[in-house]
Amino acid sequence: MASNIYDIAYELEKALKNSQEYATLQAKYEETRIDPAAKKLFDQFRNIQMKLQEKQMTGQNILQNEVEEAQRVAAMVQQNQKIVQLMDAEQQMSIAINEINKIIMKPLDELYGKMSQ
Amino acid sequence: MASNIYDIAYELEKALKNSQEYATLQAKYEETRIDPAAKKLFDQFRNIQMKLQEKQMTGQNILQNEVEEAQRVAAMVQQNQKIVQLMDAEQQMSIAINEINKIIMKPLDELYGKMSQ
Ligand SMILES: [Ca+2]
Ligand SMILES: [Ca+2]
Repeated sequence: MASNIYDIAYELEKALKNSQEYATLQAKYEETRIDPAAKKLFDQFRNIQMKLQEKQMTGQNILQNEVEEAQRVAAMVQQNQKIVQLMDAEQQMSIAINEINKIIMKPLDELYGKMSQ
Repeated sequence: MASNIYDIAYELEKALKNSQEYATLQAKYEETRIDPAAKKLFDQFRNIQMKLQEKQMTGQNILQNEVEEAQRVAAMVQQNQKIVQLMDAEQQMSIAINEINKIIMKPLDELYGKMSQ
């Protein structure tokens, strides 16, 4: 068994890249990417999300027409099966990544927990 | 070599827990925790940081006297060798964690990068 943390991190990278979650995500990205209408809608959705997130993080007001645009694009996204499947694959991958992080960070959480008692 | 991502994540947890960075951080936490004056100052510093961060994230105004209190406590922290050493150990651990995350997330970054072209 490797014991250097970076060696094991590289093993984990390789395992993630060979996982079912990654294969599915890669396939769903590709299906969306090569479909011009789906790709355009997906980019639009991501851009709106990022813009609203940035406004929220920097304490700027979100305008009524921005909320309406976000809702309109989100409704269109839900009608696009390629994007729906891509976002489902993203969520599955996100669940795996969160689980991994919870495992890795356990020793640090224990230290912080002990410190805040 | 294990190939299940969670098996490898547990290996990584164990390796992190056995690392020099972790041993140092644990020792520095303990030295601060058992020193009442250092512990009190450290808690005070963390509470102020968390309060200001929360205000910033929720877009609330940070008051002038809060800025001054944060500066005053930060100056006291820099005079406390136990806390200075603890924060240095936290930074070393943070560098290792960031490096690990960069390695693990590389396949996902590649997917996202390809998608945003
Ligand atoms: Ca289409
Ligand atoms: Ca003291």
